[in-house]
Formats: sequence, structure tokens, C-alpha cells
Amino acid sequence: MTATEPDRLTAATRPAPAPLDAASFRAAGHALIDWIADYRETIGERAVAQLPEPGAIRAMLPSRAPEFGEPIARILGDLDDIVMKGVVHWQHPGWFAYFPANSSYESILGELASAGLGVQGMLWSTSPACTEVETHMLDWLVHAMGLPERFLSTSDGGGVLQDTASSAALVAIVAARERATKFASDAHGLAAGARAVCCYTSDQAHSSIEKSARIAGIGREFVRLIPVDDQGRMRVDLLAAEVKRDRALGHLPAFVSATVGTTGVNAVDSVPEIAEVCRAHDLWLHVDAAMSGTAALCEEFRFVNAGAAHADSWCFNPHKWMPVNFDCDVLWVADRAALVRALSVLPEYLRNAATESGKVIDYRDWQVPLGRRFRALKLWFVLRSFGLEGLRALVRSHVAMARRLADRVHAYPSLELVTEPALNLVAIAHKGGDESTQRLIDAVNRDGRFFVSHCRFHGRLVLRVSIGALATTPAHVEAFTEHLLAEAARA
Amino acid sequence: MTATEPDRLTAATRPAPAPLDAASFRAAGHALIDWIADYRETIGERAVAQLPEPGAIRAMLPSRAPEFGEPIARILGDLDDIVMKGVVHWQHPGWFAYFPANSSYESILGELASAGLGVQGMLWSTSPACTEVETHMLDWLVHAMGLPERFLSTSDGGGVLQDTASSAALVAIVAARERATKFASDAHGLAAGARAVCCYTSDQAHSSIEKSARIAGIGREFVRLIPVDDQGRMRVDLLAAEVKRDRALGHLPAFVSATVGTTGVNAVDSVPEIAEVCRAHDLWLHVDAAMSGTAALCEEFRFVNAGAAHADSWCFNPHKWMPVNFDCDVLWVADRAALVRALSVLPEYLRNAATESGKVIDYRDWQVPLGRRFRALKLWFVLRSFGLEGLRALVRSHVAMARRLADRVHAYPSLELVTEPALNLVAIAHKGGDESTQRLIDAVNRDGRFFVSHCRFHGRLVLRVSIGALATTPAHVEAFTEHLLAEAARA
Repeated sequence: MTATEPDRLTAATRPAPAPLDAASFRAAGHALIDWIADYRETIGERAVAQLPEPGAIRAMLPSRAPEFGEPIARILGDLDDIVMKGVVHWQHPGWFAYFPANSSYESILGELASAGLGVQGMLWSTSPACTEVETHMLDWLVHAMGLPERFLSTSDGGGVLQDTASSAALVAIVAARERATKFASDAHGLAAGARAVCCYTSDQAHSSIEKSARIAGIGREFVRLIPVDDQGRMRVDLLAAEVKRDRALGHLPAFVSATVGTTGVNAVDSVPEIAEVCRAHDLWLHVDAAMSGTAALCEEFRFVNAGAAHADSWCFNPHKWMPVNFDCDVLWVADRAALVRALSVLPEYLRNAATESGKVIDYRDWQVPLGRRFRALKLWFVLRSFGLEGLRALVRSHVAMARRLADRVHAYPSLELVTEPALNLVAIAHKGGDESTQRLIDAVNRDGRFFVSHCRFHGRLVLRVSIGALATTPAHVEAFTEHLLAEAARA
Repeated sequence: MTATEPDRLTAATRPAPAPLDAASFRAAGHALIDWIADYRETIGERAVAQLPEPGAIRAMLPSRAPEFGEPIARILGDLDDIVMKGVVHWQHPGWFAYFPANSSYESILGELASAGLGVQGMLWSTSPACTEVETHMLDWLVHAMGLPERFLSTSDGGGVLQDTASSAALVAIVAARERATKFASDAHGLAAGARAVCCYTSDQAHSSIEKSARIAGIGREFVRLIPVDDQGRMRVDLLAAEVKRDRALGHLPAFVSATVGTTGVNAVDSVPEIAEVCRAHDLWLHVDAAMSGTAALCEEFRFVNAGAAHADSWCFNPHKWMPVNFDCDVLWVADRAALVRALSVLPEYLRNAATESGKVIDYRDWQVPLGRRFRALKLWFVLRSFGLEGLRALVRSHVAMARRLADRVHAYPSLELVTEPALNLVAIAHKGGDESTQRLIDAVNRDGRFFVSHCRFHGRLVLRVSIGALATTPAHVEAFTEHLLAEAARA
């Protein structure tokens, strides 16, 4: 066998495979790596979130694609000249808005390697390493996070990477729907069933739960948004009552999503109590730990795992607090058979000996899309370069910063903590009421060094400080605190 | 305003933000860029698809994540020592299996820039450039591909990037379901409707259509797989009859997916005729041009656009034949309001002035996930570096190579063309029957220089030759042809 033959045959006459040849790619790639490092080294000097006028970026672009190729240097130059005029700096040390969306150097390299390889992992056989590294990373994380062994690939369960917790919620809801209808809705559709499938989550849960249930044909009406207590946790008594009511009405309760770290105030539902309701009524228990699951790396924060042993599915986002760049959500299931049966289609063109041997995992059956890139590489790079101790140190430092901020706020006369911070998010209100809080948010953001976002909690406007960017240090939070308190005096 | 203050404050004491500091990232990044270029320059010397034993890759990995960080050089070294033992070389010049999954140098740079920026484009306001470059690229492509103006963002429609055509099909089906039920299923669920929503596609359509309909609660039974003609095109007479039958049964026909380039033999449905049926019965017409849409860059191949003017949604995959690395699917809709209404949830924590002004696009309402990375960068890089002429030359060269191969096969006594190749896919059968074709497939692949896959067409086993890798030249196809014919003589 001479695998090189066609290349030898044509070495002399072979055209460049694309406008950019290997030498130019090397030069441009080195320049782009340096551009990224320069950006990250100086990011703190930029205003975090200065928005252009709507349409201003488009106005800098020609109205038609070029007929002939442009030099790569000009294209890279437009990153500064055009793109930078319209990006919000999510990697900034003063990033306290929404959620941390860490893109570490390690994960950038992992993403680059994945793009460079350009392989497809839809089946084990279309790139075995793509599947096996992924399975292995998710088993590593089960151990590293102290999660139940039934999530291991060596059990009846296993893990899979999804793009986001939204997609994880969708496939979990579909699997739950099918388990509840005994796969009758998969075969004949929901319209054939006399009973409405019901889903439950708290009114502080992420919007993706409602969205997924709507996509899955369940309907907004049958997504029961259960009220929360004064700390933002689902009222389990009301959940139980609602499930009973639905049963009495002849509906089919199927799915509960508990939240570990709500988007608003980072509340952690009481998963063990919710699990009891699920057990009593045979409901699929999904845990959305997108925001706060990363904390389980540290033993002292393993309260985020409480009840996980009873979860049918559990997800968290390494692309939030764990520094793996977007997109990277981990979903574990306790019984992979239910998930795979709900999502499997095997057309002839994908049949292969490995799949039929039953010895391999084909992740296409664990997700909505067919195709998948080598997303596990960035997780592998981050886990190895940081080491678990490095990641724990990061989590601990953010929690400590949040704690210090919370103490200062608590001691400040005109501000109050809306909830007791569980981890790295501080929820603050001005005692002067919503108008004062709004003025405070605007004033804090106007400055340009920091960026916070807001939510409403029990009707009240909240200034959220989400601390978790890789670049954020205690000194940044200290400077932010001084700024916040100074503005609070004026708000 | 002094945006730099916290950085100045802490410049001396600030710890490295991660194990990899900027200097180490530069060095590792340069090395990885060179590794990718080395890989691509020598990829033709490798066997395309040599599979390890199941579990062999995992067996090389330690059973637990490391407690302490490892040097980046060792991690990068494992790309060769571990990963390369289990990848299938999708970028190989002898890649004729499944579909082309081109990851050009340009798109690798675009993906790298996106990871380096690490911004979120869920809302316009969370990084305006992310949204505006995307909108602009998809408008560029409408013009470049000669698609209808109603897909432009300046009309009532518009384009959005999805990860895959599977996800595009899912959101199109959900929008179609809601249009058909007048958003009653969104509000009350499919179970509340007395009528079953019906979807139609050919029995050669991609598996994602059936999968999406099942996810959407429609049920396998109500996905009508319409038989195809001898060239693999949906039988429009049978479609019309099936729709009428469903109406007579009291069902609710809602959605038709026409295929432009079936996965099996790359057949192109008669979209104009299908559109007539859709118009007569008020059905949502989706066109899945994932495989072959790229051909529309060339005027002479615009038959792939026939009927597009009547499509409610139309998608294709730049991550297939257009050399933009996975994942990158373009979905256009004629009426964005239906899509957005079906997928929109607006929690308080995402409210912002720009959204409320109505002047901006928030792409989170156009897709399943909430989050999104800056995926348009790689499309921008490819369109500019290749130029439209460069992309057209690529498409034309692949079609010409396929044509030459088809002619040789047609002239060869023991082989036959299963269908007349429309573009870049050649569907071949051995006249000796399925066993001979299977022996031929195995023999062609055993050699290691080339890799083909298979399908079944009207019950018959088919050797598929999908020509579209960036690295493939006429000489590779010539060498492949000689190899194929030599093996055919023995099969």
C-alpha cells in the first residue's frame, strides 16, 4: 500500500488548495495569535461595553461580497477597524454582567486544534478519538465533581457535550416526554394522546425550559412555573400540589427542572426535596446547574450536588464559570437508553460495522444535530493545563471576592442584599426603591470600567454582580466596590 | 473617565489570569498553527480512515484528571501521540465519503478570532458586531447565490446561522407547526388539538427531518416519507395525493421539506412543482439544500435555486462544500415574524433598550439555544479571502472532476451510474449486484488512499463518490478512477 501515491503523482502540478497557502497561513496565524494575546493583555484599558448606533457596523461593510480575493492582512486588519467598534468585552476584568463566559488561552488552543483537524464526530467511526476523548472527559468530570457514578459511561448512563444548556434541556424534555408516554408520542405524536404532558420548573428558572417545552409541542400552558421562596428557591410544597392537581385533572406530569444557580439571583433549588416529589410521581428530574455546577470541583461547595443521585439528567456549562470557551455544555443522563431511543434515526448511509457491534457510542443519537466537531479537545486542554487544583483555586477566589463585596454592601446603609449569596453572584438593591436601583445600575455602567446587568426578584429591580471572569482579581472587585458605594450615595 | 484604573492599581500584584500566560500562549499558539499547517501539507501521505480498536484511545488516557497543571507542550504533544491514532482525515485529498466538510485555512483563522474575542451574540446589545456581521454576510450570500430578495434582512425575511441543517429543520418545523395551528399548539400544546399536524418529505430526505418532527411532538407516524422517482426526486403526484388524503382524514398538513441534493445520490427535488402543492394547501415549504446549495454561487448551476422564490425557509451548509469549517449552516426565512414568535421568550434579565427600540435583531429568537458565538467571522474570512470567483472556481472544478469520473464509470462494462450526477456526487453500482458492490467498496477503502461511503437507492447498494474536499485535485480523482476500475475488474 502506498498511501502517498496521488501526492507524489501530482506534487509538481498541484495548485494551491485555496487562496491562502500553508506559508501564508502560518504567517497570518502567528499574527492572529499575537493579536489575541495583545487584546487580552490590554483588555482592561477598554470600556467594557460601549455600544455603537444600530447599523453602524454594517455601514462599514461593502454592500456586496468581493468578486476577487482580498489579502489576508487586510481582513485581519478589519478586526481592529470594524469588529472592535462593536464588541462588548466579555473577557474584561470588570465583567460582572449576565454570567462569566470565560475563554481561556487553553480553550482557544483547543478550539483551534479542533478547527485545524476538521473532523466530524457524528459517529464513533467517523473519528473515534472525537468520541472517546469526549466520553473520557465527561467521566473525568464525574469523579472531579463528586457526581454520582450512574453518570459514568461505564454505568447505564453517561455524558455528552451539547452546545448549550438550552439544547440539553430540550433533549431531556423530549426523553422525559417519551418515557412518560411510553414512546407513544414519538410514534403517533402528542395530538394522539388524550392527556397533556406537563413540565414543572420555578418562575426563576432559565427561559430555555419554557422554550424547550414549547418546541417539544407541550405548550406554554403546561409549563408550570412554580413560585419561589424569599431566597429564590422553588417552593417544593407548591410543586407537589401542582403535580397532584394536574393528575386530578387527568394530565400527565412528566418533567421537573430544578435549578442550581438561577440566572437572576443564583438561587439553588432544594434538589433532594424536589427529587422526592419526582420519585413519588414518577417524574423525570432534570437539574440545570449551568451557572453553578462548576463549584462542585471544590468539596466545600458540593451542596450544588445535593440530590444529584436522584437526577435523570444533570447539566452544567464549562463555558460559563469553568474557563472553556463557548459553546460547551455537559449533559449527563442516568439512563442513556431513554435519551438515545428518543433521538435515534439510523438511515442506511450511516450504517457501519462499529455501530452494529454495539461496542461504541455514536453521539449523534444524544443530541439534536447530526454533525459535531471535536469539542472535547478544549475541555481536555483546560482540565490538563489548569489541573483540578488550578480550577478549584479559581472558583474559590471568585467566591471569596463575592463574599467580600457582599459584606461591604451589607454594611452600607442605603444598599441591601436581596438574597444571601450562595457562591459568586451578589444581588443588590437600593433601599430607595427601583428608581434608585436603576440610577445606580446606570451610573455604575456609565463609567466604563465595569459592567453589571439586572433582574427582577419578587417584583423588585436588582443589580446583579456576577463575579467569575478569569481576568478579575480582588483588586478589581475592590475598585468596583468603591465605585458602587460612591455611586450609591448619589443614587 | 479612566477605564484603566483597576489595571493600573494592580499591575504589580496581579496574578497570571490562568496557568498559561500571554507569552506562553503566543509560543504555544504559534506552534499549534505550524502543527496544523504541517498536518495539512502532509495529510495526503496518511491513510484516510484507519480505525483503532474501540476503547484504544481511552486506554491511552489516565483514569482521572490531573490534580496539578501539566505543561502545554506535553498537551500539544498528545495531539500526535494520542489524538492522531484515532482521527479520520476528513480534509484528505482522497476524501470521497459522506460529504465534503471543508475546513479551509481562512475559516480556521475565523474560528480562532471568534474564540479569541470570546463574546456572546445572544442579543444585539451583547456584541453588536456579532449580529451585524452575521446579518450582512447572509445578505451578501442572497445576492451572491441569486436567491430571492425576500430572504434579505431588509425585507420581511432574513437569514441566521444555525449549527447544522438539523437545527434549521427543527426551527422551521416548529414555525410551520405554529403557523398551521395559528399558535394554538404553542399556547396549549399539540395534545389540545384534535388534529394531527403532518409533515412531508421524500424517503431520500435527510434523517434530520424525521428527527425534528419527532422532537417537535408531531410523531413518526405523521412524517410522510414520499417515494422518489428513478433519479431520486420526490414524486410530486404522490405528495399531492398524500396531502389530500390527510385532509380527508381530518389531519392538518403543515410542512413540506424539499431536498436539493439528497444525502444518498444527491438528487434535486422539483421544488417548483412541490411549491405548487404547498401553495394550494397552504403548507410551509422548507428547502434543505445543505449538500448542494453552494452550487448556486455559479450561474450555470442555479437550477438548485428553482422554486426558492416560493420557499418559506431555505437552508444550506457552508460547512460542507463551501469551505467554512463546521459548524455553519445558513437558514433563510421569508417571514421572520413567524419564526421569532415561535421561538421568543423574553425574561426580565435580557431586557434592554436596544431590543425595545425595535431597531435591532436579537438572534436568540431565531434558534434553539440562547447563547451564540461569533460564527459569522469565519464566513466573512472565507468570502473575502476566496472572493466569489475563487469559490466558483472551486465548485466548478469539483463538478468537472465528478463529470470525468462519471464518464469513465459509464464507459466501463461492469459498472453503472445509478443516477445521472447533477453536481459533485457520483453514485455507482457494480452490475454483478450488491455483493459485488460491497466487495468493491471494501477494496477501494482498504487501500488507504481514498475513502468512499455507501447508501441504498431503490433497494440497491450504492458506492457513493462525493467529490468536494479542498485538497482534491483532478490528479487525485484520476488516480482514484484507475484504482476503482482496477478493483471493479476483480469485484
